[in-house]
Amino acid sequence: MFTAETKVRVRYAETDQMGVVYHSNYFQYFEVARAEAIRDLGYTYADMEKEGIMMPIVEVQAKYLRPAFYDQLLTIKAILKELPVNHKIEFHQEVFNENAELLATGRVVLYFMDMKTKKRHSMPESLLEKIRPFFH
Amino acid sequence: MFTAETKVRVRYAETDQMGVVYHSNYFQYFEVARAEAIRDLGYTYADMEKEGIMMPIVEVQAKYLRPAFYDQLLTIKAILKELPVNHKIEFHQEVFNENAELLATGRVVLYFMDMKTKKRHSMPESLLEKIRPFFH
Amino acid sequence: MFTAETKVRVRYAETDQMGVVYHSNYFQYFEVARAEAIRDLGYTYADMEKEGIMMPIVEVQAKYLRPAFYDQLLTIKAILKELPVNHKIEFHQEVFNENAELLATGRVVLYFMDMKTKKRHSMPESLLEKIRPFFH
Amino acid sequence: MFTAETKVRVRYAETDQMGVVYHSNYFQYFEVARAEAIRDLGYTYADMEKEGIMMPIVEVQAKYLRPAFYDQLLTIKAILKELPVNHKIEFHQEVFNENAELLATGRVVLYFMDMKTKKRHSMPESLLEKIRPFFH
Repeated sequence: MFTAETKVRVRYAETDQMGVVYHSNYFQYFEVARAEAIRDLGYTYADMEKEGIMMPIVEVQAKYLRPAFYDQLLTIKAILKELPVNHKIEFHQEVFNENAELLATGRVVLYFMDMKTKKRHSMPESLLEKIRPFFH
Repeated sequence: MFTAETKVRVRYAETDQMGVVYHSNYFQYFEVARAEAIRDLGYTYADMEKEGIMMPIVEVQAKYLRPAFYDQLLTIKAILKELPVNHKIEFHQEVFNENAELLATGRVVLYFMDMKTKKRHSMPESLLEKIRPFFH
Repeated sequence: MFTAETKVRVRYAETDQMGVVYHSNYFQYFEVARAEAIRDLGYTYADMEKEGIMMPIVEVQAKYLRPAFYDQLLTIKAILKELPVNHKIEFHQEVFNENAELLATGRVVLYFMDMKTKKRHSMPESLLEKIRPFFH
Repeated sequence: MFTAETKVRVRYAETDQMGVVYHSNYFQYFEVARAEAIRDLGYTYADMEKEGIMMPIVEVQAKYLRPAFYDQLLTIKAILKELPVNHKIEFHQEVFNENAELLATGRVVLYFMDMKTKKRHSMPESLLEKIRPFFH
């Protein structure tokens, strides 16, 4: 299993008139956590796009258990439960507030795709090498 | 079954550097379609909040089949497959482009909640009356 | 002078915990109004990008006089006070609520730019032709 | 003069199909920098709202000199050039990329407002005390 976590502070812009974070903004937090997870491995998603591979999102899911509020410093986790195979990668995601209460869980499925041909592509070997050690 | 549909034109702000609509923006489109669905029934979500009932989102899901592009006039559907009972309501949602191609599907589960007590509340009777005829 | 107007209904996602539209979302409304203004002329911004010309924004300004609320059907104006010359175009923008109260004013300055060279470009002649009649 | 700076990493969601940060997202960066500036003083905007004072934005301005790109770690400055008087406060804001190039400048004017009466209010004395030492 590979787990990474990052902190995100809630912006005023991300709240809605219910006084809580608008539900779809969690997907931006998830994005930040995935990017930091990849950076922790010594790689960046930005690099991957420069190499001609992009990662469109094909499926998402989220459950909202407790609200997140303005200015809270959230902890966002990105978890790989299985070593990705072929062109598909599945992240599990969790959001905690400063009291370590679980606010939300998510699941995000992405494909590796060749930017030019728009066809599915296997995970870049350079990234796979860095992830593999976590799955023994 | 109750179905409503509305049109949403993709804004430049909603695209990302992949040249397509960023995945979480579909949830805003879903929101618009649900609001218009309720308006079609002669009711508005804004009215409901004025009556002290709000509808937090407790679960979402989306699958992305084809990308949506800038300036496309999308058709967004909001579908109730079952008459909601108690405090819970579940919308199925679909997004089509101008060629009637299905771009994405979604599922959004909301609760009716008393704004003051923050406790679950049954669907307002005034709304239920308008939905019930679709389920015979 | 050339004036165009379009309607935008406020989304829940666009409100913040003050219970009003978050200030920077007005720039999305301005974007919508400019796009519709160009469409009124029988042209689209999307077409312009296909021809290799894009319009980055170089300066914006907005004044907020009254708040906009969820579900209001706003009227957004895009106004050209002068015929654009060279590579620069300046829109004045206004936002009204359903009671015709002025909520905000704005000014947005854009450049025409060649997408490949990233250099300034004059306004496409095909667009200029359609705008010119309004300035006699 | 009072100056504070904070770092913000560009999210994928904040880019548009031009491949750069969409112009209105800078106002979210400005918001983050103002919040951190107040936090540096040992105060938080969230606290102020709890005390019944909110700060609606009445005017903004921004100039865009160079684009910001995905994953860049931007430095955002919030600058008070003058000690605020009465109900009004004016921030100057600057955005730099990792090469210390100035990408954008901004100006944001806010009012202090009583949340209940919706009337203008002077700056809370507790905040003023913390700012005053910077203006001698």
